[in-house]
Amino acid sequence: MNTRKTIVWTKKDLLGLEYLSRQEIELILSTAESFKEVTTRQIKKVPALRGKTVVNLFYEPSTRTRVSFEVAAKRLSADVINISTETSSVKKGETLVDTGKNIEALKVDTIIMRHNCSGAAAMLARHVSASVINAGDGWHEHPTQALLDMFTLKEKLGRIEGLKVSIAGDIAHSRVARSNIWGLIKLGAEVTVCAPKILIPPGIEKMGVKVTNNIDEALAGADAVNVLRMQFERDQSNAFPKQLEYFKTFGVTRERLKKAKKDIVVMHPGPINRGIEMSSEVADGANSVILEQVTNGIAVRMAVLFLVAQANERLKNENTD
Amino acid sequence: MNTRKTIVWTKKDLLGLEYLSRQEIELILSTAESFKEVTTRQIKKVPALRGKTVVNLFYEPSTRTRVSFEVAAKRLSADVINISTETSSVKKGETLVDTGKNIEALKVDTIIMRHNCSGAAAMLARHVSASVINAGDGWHEHPTQALLDMFTLKEKLGRIEGLKVSIAGDIAHSRVARSNIWGLIKLGAEVTVCAPKILIPPGIEKMGVKVTNNIDEALAGADAVNVLRMQFERDQSNAFPKQLEYFKTFGVTRERLKKAKKDIVVMHPGPINRGIEMSSEVADGANSVILEQVTNGIAVRMAVLFLVAQANERLKNENTD
Amino acid sequence: MNTRKTIVWTKKDLLGLEYLSRQEIELILSTAESFKEVTTRQIKKVPALRGKTVVNLFYEPSTRTRVSFEVAAKRLSADVINISTETSSVKKGETLVDTGKNIEALKVDTIIMRHNCSGAAAMLARHVSASVINAGDGWHEHPTQALLDMFTLKEKLGRIEGLKVSIAGDIAHSRVARSNIWGLIKLGAEVTVCAPKILIPPGIEKMGVKVTNNIDEALAGADAVNVLRMQFERDQSNAFPKQLEYFKTFGVTRERLKKAKKDIVVMHPGPINRGIEMSSEVADGANSVILEQVTNGIAVRMAVLFLVAQANERLKNENTD
Repeated sequence: MNTRKTIVWTKKDLLGLEYLSRQEIELILSTAESFKEVTTRQIKKVPALRGKTVVNLFYEPSTRTRVSFEVAAKRLSADVINISTETSSVKKGETLVDTGKNIEALKVDTIIMRHNCSGAAAMLARHVSASVINAGDGWHEHPTQALLDMFTLKEKLGRIEGLKVSIAGDIAHSRVARSNIWGLIKLGAEVTVCAPKILIPPGIEKMGVKVTNNIDEALAGADAVNVLRMQFERDQSNAFPKQLEYFKTFGVTRERLKKAKKDIVVMHPGPINRGIEMSSEVADGANSVILEQVTNGIAVRMAVLFLVAQANERLKNENTD
Repeated sequence: MNTRKTIVWTKKDLLGLEYLSRQEIELILSTAESFKEVTTRQIKKVPALRGKTVVNLFYEPSTRTRVSFEVAAKRLSADVINISTETSSVKKGETLVDTGKNIEALKVDTIIMRHNCSGAAAMLARHVSASVINAGDGWHEHPTQALLDMFTLKEKLGRIEGLKVSIAGDIAHSRVARSNIWGLIKLGAEVTVCAPKILIPPGIEKMGVKVTNNIDEALAGADAVNVLRMQFERDQSNAFPKQLEYFKTFGVTRERLKKAKKDIVVMHPGPINRGIEMSSEVADGANSVILEQVTNGIAVRMAVLFLVAQANERLKNENTD
Repeated sequence: MNTRKTIVWTKKDLLGLEYLSRQEIELILSTAESFKEVTTRQIKKVPALRGKTVVNLFYEPSTRTRVSFEVAAKRLSADVINISTETSSVKKGETLVDTGKNIEALKVDTIIMRHNCSGAAAMLARHVSASVINAGDGWHEHPTQALLDMFTLKEKLGRIEGLKVSIAGDIAHSRVARSNIWGLIKLGAEVTVCAPKILIPPGIEKMGVKVTNNIDEALAGADAVNVLRMQFERDQSNAFPKQLEYFKTFGVTRERLKKAKKDIVVMHPGPINRGIEMSSEVADGANSVILEQVTNGIAVRMAVLFLVAQANERLKNENTD
């Protein structure tokens, strides 16, 4: 605990957990703890970001993440501006950097960006002095999702260090998996990934994880399992037989959980495909913390918004000194 | 007047006027009266819902109702989050209950929902502890529209009890008609519905209304007529001849009003089809209160938002005691 | 300077620079100067429009202008409601005046409107007592864009009077050009427009401008050049050869600028087509003030929002006296 107190957040951006130290991740989680208390008050608002402007810049549709960030920013008293590509200048062929520089010229403080290209948030961050928060970039990272997963794990199990955590689903195309792996490994968890062979990216072992193609193996002895969403809607051909097959082979069911630790924590980033990656019984069962993850997302995003804003202000003051 | 004072609003939701007592409806109307005064001030804002989060969850496009609720919530100092299905997780196949539970997990206080299925708001309300306000569910109810209609009637004519009110238009497919009938009957008005036979739902008399297929009959002796929007845009085949025919047979015109009471109040939930269900002369004439209905919608929605939030807070405090 | 102090803004609307006096334009620019200071503070918010409701009513998609007005209004502490035609009652066939009257009935204070028809804002303004700000009407005017261009010019060059300003691009279809011409001429600048013959509207000389079809002529001796966006995306046939040809003949490049004044100010309303109307070197070069224009847009729009709100309040008080 003492180490945390001495750490100060100095980065203007949050781009991915790959780029953070263990201490920085712990600082976000402990800051989120204080903000979680705020969300239980009758008046759930604090003036921390009053007068600041936060832009949600979403190049992919996403209600859940956008709304979570919007609620978090408003609870910090920031002004929030939503921009989605459906209506944006992107249609007129503007480059990402030009869009970013134009948003920055509005004297905006923080840009939360989701983009379908890996590295988009990092590129934007290099070109603007506003803070950039990566809300998902291609298959690369989705750091606030992993942070809220870890926050929930720590809340449930008291620690991350030494935990056995399995991540099951389409690992190859999942930024949620990648951010969780970076974060969990840094905080000392043992991570196993589980998927059909074709959905395991080659060389994933180098990240320090074990690999299995057997869901029962992934569940056996695990303290927690993070079940990813299968995106069958992207390939409609024979979707139904494929979904049935996936559920039979990989679906997390009550029967399968019987062979796992009694208190195994079941997580899912949502939205759930009931009857595909997990059964409804599991999704709504005693081991599931899925809705608590959503609640914790607000506290974690408040923490991130607060820390990057504070760091950026310090940076700007140093530059003007 | 004394009865009103002794009534306290205890429901966490507003789902339909069918489920309210006369006293509860009168309580909403009298609360709205106080809020109407606020909207005439130079600073039209009160801190009643400061720190509360209100979500507009619209499964059907609706600018008018969404904006009216958004303005009402902001005048109460609430934070407002807009979600429309165009961009929502619904596209990803999430069920309504899952969507509701996820929104609730954001520690949101009130969900205002419009949905194309009858009973959707009631189902949501059973599954979430947040307050749910029905902003229109299929052909079932649109309670705040009926409340603003009744508020306007009472403002114009001093009472609802004993008034003769006709409702003209597509009664069969109108949630506005249904909510008005429940509310007006409970408050002691005499209600007549008027439409072509095919647009009168069988058994409507059981709700306590008279039925006519003759607009002149509906207007004769009525204190007020509520003219519903004809949704010809949903069936484009031969739309124009059908519209002309409807206007000839059922359109409310100056000529027809000449045979009605001189001070008959003409209402319409908007948007008006000029030259279809009523003539422009009538829409803009001295009997029309159409724009006053829009203004009163803010006060009525402020009242509903305020009452359900207060009741829900009491319920939550009781549960934690 | 003394003249400015004695002028009071009395118009409830801002419809176009054609309808303003030199003193009124100068009053907006000097008011914007004070607001620009606000945007440099740590807390960039002032309570000037607290409790006021501002509606962004956009019949054409536009992220840049909508966001700029939204940020400006929020920095003045107004509540902002966004309405875009994608989701609006317009789909249901409502007329513009009915839409305006309905919005006004919500007791909204200011309507910012973009519409594809020339004169739409003026028509709306005649029918509502709310303030109307024209955010672009067809090919007619886009007054706040011209005001921010002039604000930037004055900031860079200390004055407008006597400046030589060239406007290059599709003059015929540009509301930005038209508003700039009205404003610059009133404030005493010499204006030259430059475009291929087919994009020069007949009779433009009557506005008091010089005309050239040669970009080098337009640049020679100019204190500033305002380069308009070429809308090639509207005509996709042979777009690429036409773009190359345009760039070769009219594109503003470093080579061409070498023959211009060393300190020529290069402006562009954005979004830029790099390599079509100007080269990237010029867009990002030392003469470019393109991003400063964006920043100044906030201050100018805050000034306009503030002045029309103040004038409208005075008007309403006079009417009730």
